[in-house]
Amino acid sequence: MSETRTETDSIGPIEVPADAYWGAQTQRSIANFPFGERERMPIGIVHALALVKQAAARVNRGHGLAADKADAIEAAAAEVAAGKLDDQFPLVIWQTGSGTQSNMNVNEVIAGRANEMLTGARGGKAPVHPNDDVNMSQSSNDSFPTALHVAAYLRVADRLVPALKRLRMLLDARASMWEDIVKIGRTHLQDATPLTLGQEFSGYAEQCDQGLARIEGVLPRLARLAQGGTAVGTGLNAPAGFDVAVAAEIAALTGLPFLTAGSKFEALASNDTLVELSGALNTLAVSLTKIANDIRLLGSGPRSGLGELDLPANEPGSSIMPGKVNPTQCEMLTMVAAQVIGNHAAITVGGLQGHLELNVFKPMIGANILRSIDLLATGMESFAERCVEGLEPNRSRIAELVDRSLMLVTALAPEIGYDNAAKIAKHAHAEGLTLREAGLALGLVDAATFDRLVRPETMVGN
Amino acid sequence: MSETRTETDSIGPIEVPADAYWGAQTQRSIANFPFGERERMPIGIVHALALVKQAAARVNRGHGLAADKADAIEAAAAEVAAGKLDDQFPLVIWQTGSGTQSNMNVNEVIAGRANEMLTGARGGKAPVHPNDDVNMSQSSNDSFPTALHVAAYLRVADRLVPALKRLRMLLDARASMWEDIVKIGRTHLQDATPLTLGQEFSGYAEQCDQGLARIEGVLPRLARLAQGGTAVGTGLNAPAGFDVAVAAEIAALTGLPFLTAGSKFEALASNDTLVELSGALNTLAVSLTKIANDIRLLGSGPRSGLGELDLPANEPGSSIMPGKVNPTQCEMLTMVAAQVIGNHAAITVGGLQGHLELNVFKPMIGANILRSIDLLATGMESFAERCVEGLEPNRSRIAELVDRSLMLVTALAPEIGYDNAAKIAKHAHAEGLTLREAGLALGLVDAATFDRLVRPETMVGN
Amino acid sequence: MSETRTETDSIGPIEVPADAYWGAQTQRSIANFPFGERERMPIGIVHALALVKQAAARVNRGHGLAADKADAIEAAAAEVAAGKLDDQFPLVIWQTGSGTQSNMNVNEVIAGRANEMLTGARGGKAPVHPNDDVNMSQSSNDSFPTALHVAAYLRVADRLVPALKRLRMLLDARASMWEDIVKIGRTHLQDATPLTLGQEFSGYAEQCDQGLARIEGVLPRLARLAQGGTAVGTGLNAPAGFDVAVAAEIAALTGLPFLTAGSKFEALASNDTLVELSGALNTLAVSLTKIANDIRLLGSGPRSGLGELDLPANEPGSSIMPGKVNPTQCEMLTMVAAQVIGNHAAITVGGLQGHLELNVFKPMIGANILRSIDLLATGMESFAERCVEGLEPNRSRIAELVDRSLMLVTALAPEIGYDNAAKIAKHAHAEGLTLREAGLALGLVDAATFDRLVRPETMVGN
Amino acid sequence: MSETRTETDSIGPIEVPADAYWGAQTQRSIANFPFGERERMPIGIVHALALVKQAAARVNRGHGLAADKADAIEAAAAEVAAGKLDDQFPLVIWQTGSGTQSNMNVNEVIAGRANEMLTGARGGKAPVHPNDDVNMSQSSNDSFPTALHVAAYLRVADRLVPALKRLRMLLDARASMWEDIVKIGRTHLQDATPLTLGQEFSGYAEQCDQGLARIEGVLPRLARLAQGGTAVGTGLNAPAGFDVAVAAEIAALTGLPFLTAGSKFEALASNDTLVELSGALNTLAVSLTKIANDIRLLGSGPRSGLGELDLPANEPGSSIMPGKVNPTQCEMLTMVAAQVIGNHAAITVGGLQGHLELNVFKPMIGANILRSIDLLATGMESFAERCVEGLEPNRSRIAELVDRSLMLVTALAPEIGYDNAAKIAKHAHAEGLTLREAGLALGLVDAATFDRLVRPETMVGN
Repeated sequence: MSETRTETDSIGPIEVPADAYWGAQTQRSIANFPFGERERMPIGIVHALALVKQAAARVNRGHGLAADKADAIEAAAAEVAAGKLDDQFPLVIWQTGSGTQSNMNVNEVIAGRANEMLTGARGGKAPVHPNDDVNMSQSSNDSFPTALHVAAYLRVADRLVPALKRLRMLLDARASMWEDIVKIGRTHLQDATPLTLGQEFSGYAEQCDQGLARIEGVLPRLARLAQGGTAVGTGLNAPAGFDVAVAAEIAALTGLPFLTAGSKFEALASNDTLVELSGALNTLAVSLTKIANDIRLLGSGPRSGLGELDLPANEPGSSIMPGKVNPTQCEMLTMVAAQVIGNHAAITVGGLQGHLELNVFKPMIGANILRSIDLLATGMESFAERCVEGLEPNRSRIAELVDRSLMLVTALAPEIGYDNAAKIAKHAHAEGLTLREAGLALGLVDAATFDRLVRPETMVGN
Repeated sequence: MSETRTETDSIGPIEVPADAYWGAQTQRSIANFPFGERERMPIGIVHALALVKQAAARVNRGHGLAADKADAIEAAAAEVAAGKLDDQFPLVIWQTGSGTQSNMNVNEVIAGRANEMLTGARGGKAPVHPNDDVNMSQSSNDSFPTALHVAAYLRVADRLVPALKRLRMLLDARASMWEDIVKIGRTHLQDATPLTLGQEFSGYAEQCDQGLARIEGVLPRLARLAQGGTAVGTGLNAPAGFDVAVAAEIAALTGLPFLTAGSKFEALASNDTLVELSGALNTLAVSLTKIANDIRLLGSGPRSGLGELDLPANEPGSSIMPGKVNPTQCEMLTMVAAQVIGNHAAITVGGLQGHLELNVFKPMIGANILRSIDLLATGMESFAERCVEGLEPNRSRIAELVDRSLMLVTALAPEIGYDNAAKIAKHAHAEGLTLREAGLALGLVDAATFDRLVRPETMVGN
Repeated sequence: MSETRTETDSIGPIEVPADAYWGAQTQRSIANFPFGERERMPIGIVHALALVKQAAARVNRGHGLAADKADAIEAAAAEVAAGKLDDQFPLVIWQTGSGTQSNMNVNEVIAGRANEMLTGARGGKAPVHPNDDVNMSQSSNDSFPTALHVAAYLRVADRLVPALKRLRMLLDARASMWEDIVKIGRTHLQDATPLTLGQEFSGYAEQCDQGLARIEGVLPRLARLAQGGTAVGTGLNAPAGFDVAVAAEIAALTGLPFLTAGSKFEALASNDTLVELSGALNTLAVSLTKIANDIRLLGSGPRSGLGELDLPANEPGSSIMPGKVNPTQCEMLTMVAAQVIGNHAAITVGGLQGHLELNVFKPMIGANILRSIDLLATGMESFAERCVEGLEPNRSRIAELVDRSLMLVTALAPEIGYDNAAKIAKHAHAEGLTLREAGLALGLVDAATFDRLVRPETMVGN
Repeated sequence: MSETRTETDSIGPIEVPADAYWGAQTQRSIANFPFGERERMPIGIVHALALVKQAAARVNRGHGLAADKADAIEAAAAEVAAGKLDDQFPLVIWQTGSGTQSNMNVNEVIAGRANEMLTGARGGKAPVHPNDDVNMSQSSNDSFPTALHVAAYLRVADRLVPALKRLRMLLDARASMWEDIVKIGRTHLQDATPLTLGQEFSGYAEQCDQGLARIEGVLPRLARLAQGGTAVGTGLNAPAGFDVAVAAEIAALTGLPFLTAGSKFEALASNDTLVELSGALNTLAVSLTKIANDIRLLGSGPRSGLGELDLPANEPGSSIMPGKVNPTQCEMLTMVAAQVIGNHAAITVGGLQGHLELNVFKPMIGANILRSIDLLATGMESFAERCVEGLEPNRSRIAELVDRSLMLVTALAPEIGYDNAAKIAKHAHAEGLTLREAGLALGLVDAATFDRLVRPETMVGN
């Protein structure tokens, strides 16, 4: 056994590894929730909690926190927020539903590190006490949901939005590059009237644009922070104005437009804005599934599928079929989307089970939100770079398919009527004729009219 | 205003339409939950409640219920169960979560009809009282969940299982009919090694078989009835043995193997078995989506899709594109499947929110279970008859695609190695050659070996 | 058999009831999708389709539609939109995934009624043709999604928003009325520091406010209409400017700010905005579950629960337990919320399965959106009127609970430290003492300090 | 930069860390799917793949695999299965949807280690080739789903079932221990007729029992293995009987009753049995939520809640409220349940999107199934040990609540009628009387009758 030191909490003394910065409550949680490393609380939440502590110390300095303690707390919190002590946060998602233990883990590590700075001895509760000093004017009940909003906002701003914008840009570039490639349209997976490949991709770009608008629409509510509500929303034990001041400090630390929440009661008792954000991610997952599925379909083949797009060959496709190339980026992205949809269900189920002054599904909700954001961001980045950027239209295949389409008959309907146009299409299909042959054979259209009206390149709008 | 009569309950008097069989509590519920006709409690639940009342009267006859009252209750309940008074059940799904009001609606209508039989005057509480006589030895808390199990079992047995068996039979028949049609396989929507069309359909038939096994696996638990638990599971106010006897009577009335539940506490406080049944329906919905999607894909075209199957043209496909035929039965079935998946989410959310002695999401859970069963049953019947039965393989198209496939190269791998086989496939793809041409050109295989190994008809197993 | 007449479509002739306005395609769909009355396409979608037809006739009048036909179409469409022909729409949700058959049902009924106006003979295709005239410049692929946006927007504006505002107003009124009632707070369902009953309700009012903002945030995208895209988004067979003009006419007819969609390709191929709207409804369902659950908890009792609120007794609560009153409106609202969450799952599953130029889960998505809106609207109206409005605080019970709370000790922590405060609370709990007794007994606080700090009325903030 | 060696695949050469056992395809996947360590493919799937390779080598030995190669493959595979090379599997969940890259990772590491055993040089393709030898007679398309079934079955048998049995046993023990503690029942969260605390817990034990039956009901289908289907289900390139033999070897290696699947087409193209298993886990999650919620409710307090159970104090409850004890194990378990429900949604969405011969959501489905199993197993173990085992009934509180209950009036109803009993209860409630006082005051019951009938201990059944 390695060296330990004794730490205490209101339950009593407990042995902690001598080199750990954490204290009694962290140690107790390790024992009480043995889920293993893979289930650790996302480090983004820990970093955001540290930002909260740093901001709180700045405000508390003016309200009774001694300057030397405040300095040390700020310095230690900054180290945690910068990721320098990531190995000091062994706790898992599956703990108390308020995130109290992760909040205490952060309080203890910051106190433990601050005490080391001030005294040379790691850990402990003096001179800096994890509750009385680091957690001063705070409760887990307001710090933890504040950290979830801060962590989610940071990831959305730093990773999700740029990835989505880049994907949108690449899709939009293809909408322009391919605006002259007339191809068969398909509705119900059946041949329909033509459009351009560029038009098809313009729809995908629009889906991304709207996805961006959906996510950005949540940000004003995500920017609202629970901090200052303390235990039940009343702000007990926090000085007047603490809420506004701490939000301003967090805004200063992050460069993001955080404000204090309009209602601390709502901000503790519900996680509705995270449910809402998850809904926006769910919609994005739906959009990305559509886009990736279409590209997979258009790239199906090489000889027995639609074959209109060539997908980049990033790796060998099969362990048994030599030479096979598979739409692996599409598969990755649609799997990511399914996970995000599942995470949304988990978040919804957690969101609805709050009781009175507190919702106690916060770690689960927070972990799922951050995972959804990260999966979507990395998924879109990879898909953009390794799939969209390498797509190549198969122009000869596209031309071949549009030329023999029966649905070009639609262009005749305004002139000869829907019912007559239908007869031509059915005759052509039954006899294996071209539309022109069928129309003339049935005497329902003359050659000049046909040639004037049935021109794919004029059927795709402007 | 039409004629009314006065009925009373423990809240006080209330006017009821003179020609209605129902009483005060039904009338109150109409006013308290104004959701409209479309949201009515499914009539299958009403019929099952009537079966419960009929069975209870038979048992109560030996425990203090006067014979003339018992006769009248049985007769009136039989009328309700047979659907003769369906217009007497105006209440909606969205009421008290125990289904008390629908239970009272049934109690009141049976009492009202029994009183009419006995006295000539419709309605009222004498001589037959809705609570003291019709509801004798019962509570809503045991009657309503009993009715949900009975109603669900009846629909599964009468509609779902036959529909699933018929679909399975039709798919299996095609597996046999088409066992010699060698076609290209597709994995990742990319060309792969061949199989027969019959083999493809044998997989669908197997999915149905397993779906049947999944549903049948739930039936032993669905057969267990809560009746006899009364208010909280203890059986207060029911005579000893009532639970066993009433289950036997319900079994006799329905011809199904109902038994009393092992634990009445579990049977009232949870609806776990309905959540489980919904899980089996969810899995079936997943299977049906796969089957319908594949048929839609194989039928895509007619000229720019896979085109391996011709789907029956049941109706004009498009209001603008003349002559279009769409896979409408596939679309119906996949929409039905999506609804069943959604209903499963609703049932899950309701199932997890029970409190202590009672789960109060029963009407919502029951309505979703019955809707899922009915949608799946009708959906499968229609899909079987109007799609599967009319499918025709396009043999020339199938042959054309398999002949030019590059993945036939897989048959060479055991003899020339995976890496060499991959070279041949890639060379053929790049140069637009056949595999044979590419293999000979690269000198990696000789003609005799190629012709011996690369024969699609021998690559499909036995 | 009743009288019939013969109607035809591109499949051939079919007998239609002589008194029906509909034609061949409607009749065919009745036979092909036998799901029964309860599964009918929501009438709101039919009415919205009629608005589309009315608007289209106005625009088409300037583009080749004869004035007399245009007049008759407009008049007939107005009748349908006003609900005068509701029995002419027998088709069900489970049909072709583009809604083509419901679009044709509307086209046929309007043509059939217009022909009756013009010729005296009901039905038929002359002089007004369902496709060539009523559906002129349109496709199901743009008309149906347009109708879904129009129908959803109308219901949100007419029913959902007013119901939500009224609920919010009633909750907010209670926040004011009860701002002086100091009560025990509860976090983790455990006793916590006090707050006022008014503060508790202010959190619910805020949840409603944010729910409103969430729904209103979707409206700018919901206002965008697909109309003008025709079959695949290119606008083939529609005159230039048709899209803008028809949106303006729909806006004029409804008084709502409809505009043409920025991308018709996105508007046909995806239903992302309906998925987004469903996400907002899902969040509202989560909020309402929290509110109704809290009120149920606070009203639990009357003698063995929390008992802080008296709920109105709208009906007898139990069929076996005399005198019982149950929180039935809470149960109704939480069941409604579970259904909305399930509908959201169905919509999500449908939304992600689009293929290329069209998503073919439109009727299922539309039916679920409208049902969710209606259920939430009626549910909130009923809950507001029959539960919230009748709530009464039980002041003596509330006072009793706050007085004996151990968590008032929190007010001591800033002065005597967290660890000493914890000792007092644990000692009081173990020995059954008041906090004051325990604090003095342990010598950790003096009487004057205790009385100065531990005053519930000063612990609830301002 | 560290040392590398060159490996090749059909795409070309690539540099691999010199000390890695893996080869080109693994290296390529690392670059193509940069999701980070936390998203690694669960190691249980890797171990199960290694078991497949070990079993396949045993069978291939009789079909052309040289004995020395077979020996080396078996030995290397056994090392992987035993977890000795866990750091050699850097690939993530989000890759090709067939799991090809993880299958190749296993093939490459086993080949690389076998080559080291045979030649002293790590890695490479000779003498043991990852495809031709390690993957002999196999495809990713059958190996990967086989590994998912094997991994899931192992975890269910080793972890989930024992944890569930232990929880069931502890609950059942309390059902016996507390069979004489009469307490108030609660339905609709309102006071109801009494039951014993033991009866309440017997319902929880029954939920566990049924959960066990549900999971065991899936095992016969989970025992069926896809192995032998190779690329598309036909078994191309595998010798006759390979499927049966390899399943027997896997059964021998694991001691579990694995058999070859009845239809390899179903086994590759669908993952229905994993969807089904997830449905059983979803039902268990619903049950566990109910149990944990009830215990949280019964333990609410200590002074302002129901207070019937004392929960063990495992850690300090609050960072701001000294002395608070929270139901943290209940919160952990309900969060775990919410995650399992979310995972089920993800699995369902993945399960329904298969195409033709292959479902390509396998890694996502597999990762979610294993996570759900592990979370439930650890969650139940922890909850059983740290919550259920430490529960203590608060007998005086329980007695106090049952004594003053109004719902004891139910015992009078069979003798004085439901309506009179209701009058007594309402009078007692309105006037704050006991039932006895109210009954006598109203003259609806005499003292002797009251005392004979209203005895809680006789109202709880037998």
